[in-house]
Amino acid sequence: MDAERRVIRDGALAVAGEEILWIGPRADLPKEMSARRVIGAEGKVVIPGMINAHSHLAMTLFRGFVEDLELEQWLQRVWKYELSMLDEPSVVAGFKLALAEMLHAGVTCAHDMYWHCEATMALAEEVGFRLLSGPPMTDIGGQSVEDLVGEARSVLNRAEAYQVVQPILQAHSVYTTSAEMLNAVRDLKEEYGLIFTTHASETRKEVQETKALHGKTPIELLKSHGLLDQRTVLAHCVHLEPQDTDILDQTGTHVAHCPESNLKLGSGIAPIAALLERGINVCLGTDGPASNNDFNLLGEMRTAALLQKGYRMDPRVLTTGDVLAMATCNGAKAYGLETTLGSLEPGKKADIVILDFQQANLTPRHDICAGIIYSAGRDSVDTVLVGGQIMVEQRALVAFDEGPVLAEVAEIARRFV
Amino acid sequence: MDAERRVIRDGALAVAGEEILWIGPRADLPKEMSARRVIGAEGKVVIPGMINAHSHLAMTLFRGFVEDLELEQWLQRVWKYELSMLDEPSVVAGFKLALAEMLHAGVTCAHDMYWHCEATMALAEEVGFRLLSGPPMTDIGGQSVEDLVGEARSVLNRAEAYQVVQPILQAHSVYTTSAEMLNAVRDLKEEYGLIFTTHASETRKEVQETKALHGKTPIELLKSHGLLDQRTVLAHCVHLEPQDTDILDQTGTHVAHCPESNLKLGSGIAPIAALLERGINVCLGTDGPASNNDFNLLGEMRTAALLQKGYRMDPRVLTTGDVLAMATCNGAKAYGLETTLGSLEPGKKADIVILDFQQANLTPRHDICAGIIYSAGRDSVDTVLVGGQIMVEQRALVAFDEGPVLAEVAEIARRFV
Repeated sequence: MDAERRVIRDGALAVAGEEILWIGPRADLPKEMSARRVIGAEGKVVIPGMINAHSHLAMTLFRGFVEDLELEQWLQRVWKYELSMLDEPSVVAGFKLALAEMLHAGVTCAHDMYWHCEATMALAEEVGFRLLSGPPMTDIGGQSVEDLVGEARSVLNRAEAYQVVQPILQAHSVYTTSAEMLNAVRDLKEEYGLIFTTHASETRKEVQETKALHGKTPIELLKSHGLLDQRTVLAHCVHLEPQDTDILDQTGTHVAHCPESNLKLGSGIAPIAALLERGINVCLGTDGPASNNDFNLLGEMRTAALLQKGYRMDPRVLTTGDVLAMATCNGAKAYGLETTLGSLEPGKKADIVILDFQQANLTPRHDICAGIIYSAGRDSVDTVLVGGQIMVEQRALVAFDEGPVLAEVAEIARRFV
Repeated sequence: MDAERRVIRDGALAVAGEEILWIGPRADLPKEMSARRVIGAEGKVVIPGMINAHSHLAMTLFRGFVEDLELEQWLQRVWKYELSMLDEPSVVAGFKLALAEMLHAGVTCAHDMYWHCEATMALAEEVGFRLLSGPPMTDIGGQSVEDLVGEARSVLNRAEAYQVVQPILQAHSVYTTSAEMLNAVRDLKEEYGLIFTTHASETRKEVQETKALHGKTPIELLKSHGLLDQRTVLAHCVHLEPQDTDILDQTGTHVAHCPESNLKLGSGIAPIAALLERGINVCLGTDGPASNNDFNLLGEMRTAALLQKGYRMDPRVLTTGDVLAMATCNGAKAYGLETTLGSLEPGKKADIVILDFQQANLTPRHDICAGIIYSAGRDSVDTVLVGGQIMVEQRALVAFDEGPVLAEVAEIARRFV
């Protein structure tokens, strides 16, 4: 996923500390290089760690809990349980399960928008998982603007000490966040210089109601609050009017596409091929596992590619390279991390996934990239490194013991019934 | 997948010979029953073996070979290579790889339309894989009607001795099969009383050209040849006119839905929710791996469910139970096998898949069926039985040694370049 999208056959990659030191054909590996440890990858394919650009991680607790409902009814049901049942230990357990699940799927970096973010950010830092998180500003919980701003400052200040966790600013959506709150977010965004993200234009109803209330589409409304620029990521963007696409293009705003969630909730099909044709940067997210129902970005890439080809009735749109970029370098760019993440290049973080292609479903190998997008699965994810640390080895999670986490989450879920 | 779609918790299932002897809550297991072998399935989910209702198995050889092309251009490229390069040993190797791949994915029964069917049918019989196959009648290879009918008779007569392989009749499509050939197929169908299957209304172009040439849609044309009834399965049915749906309904014709292939080739989105509302029986197929690019019916179920919800903008259509039925009992019904396959009931064949739910992506388990459709993958397929024979055990193929098959297919694929 470098600028030339090179595929290096019979390659080698050297890691020093947290970073990639060298990459190229194995025959060109400098003779003077030696390593404490060598991981053989014959018959395997090495790709950058995938970046989940939009998600709600601890919602693993709600996996399969709300099926076959539209977003609005779905949210009402989820919010009811979130507000009455979720305490910090539950959220932390659900979050840790998400880390295990993502690492098994080759996801090394993820956005998260959820409650109790300070505790989850601390856990990600401890595990060494590259989290993009921060306090979600919203009226859902009933807190005042002053309280939320104070809380946000406290979280953001403490996050300065983190090495792998990146603080961001976020609001839930224009329909759950007051104008005053949005302005406060804008002020924090300018003060801290952080990336901002929110849901936008996810459903037709959201667009219709925002227009009825404000005379503006959600995208226009966010722009009017000064919230759209190259340091903003908008999740979904399913229902765009022509002026919305112009605004995204002109402001350099990034789009986090969540095809499986949009389909599952009946929200619709985002016009991603058209956005890419306009040069808008589109990255890829799973959304929460209550509307997906997993964090498998390999599957999400497949869905993204298939969907646009079928929707546009044109098999040439969204090539395999395009969607692999969405799940790697485009995600890095959206979150301002293009110099450190998203491709396998010297100087970048050693966030690396080794896919085992010695499987029936990946034989023969006429096209490696097509193999990754259309045939690989969690079962192909052999080894995963984050910042040079081995997190998954021969398909087993070594980052932490996942057994107790599975048991704890199963126990918490029993309380819901 | 019985008539009540029961989910039995803490269940037990007894197999005697090829068949299911008993199923029910473990506590009700008759005391006098004993078994030579007991397979523990704690934390696991047992489902009927999945039925791949439309595929071209040996096209594993072309996996990733033809990317980003529309069906017509795609076919021209594939046909060129098929006619110039494929011999029986290559097809048999590609077919055996497909059996390995399907068994790993929990698919225990599959339709196949491809060259050298006699050799592949013999191999399936030897392996014990439940194949639905027969000679494809078509003008593609340039053979005369008499020659093909003679060949078909020979294959069908020999297949009478098979135990697990079911012979069927098939034509490629109305645009590759002459009227004379279609009439010959109809006569064979009546003579042998077999199931007939063909591609129909896959692309807009096919429908337009068929109408221009014959004044009829492909569905109307097939009906005019007397080929549509309850013993006919039509693959794809993406572009249906209102009278087509009426014909499918009135004749009791079955539809094999192949969503991933239809999307990938840019063919479009089949109106499956509408067909189900009309009471038309819809089953599920992967199509060939050159346009998918795998045989993973778990993924195909997910795509089918997500796609209709998003396409119809209604999350209530295609419930998880509906799509699991498409991949199991509906497939059995389409191929006239509803008394022996498609559900876990006493007297039916012991075609059984045990899914391991002790994974992060399948925790917690608020909804088992949602877990199967939206979160399970090949990595969840722990054990697979066909007719009481263990084919996959603890994720390893035991039906045959797959290593040499992978190597052989990789070698054959090298010749293509």
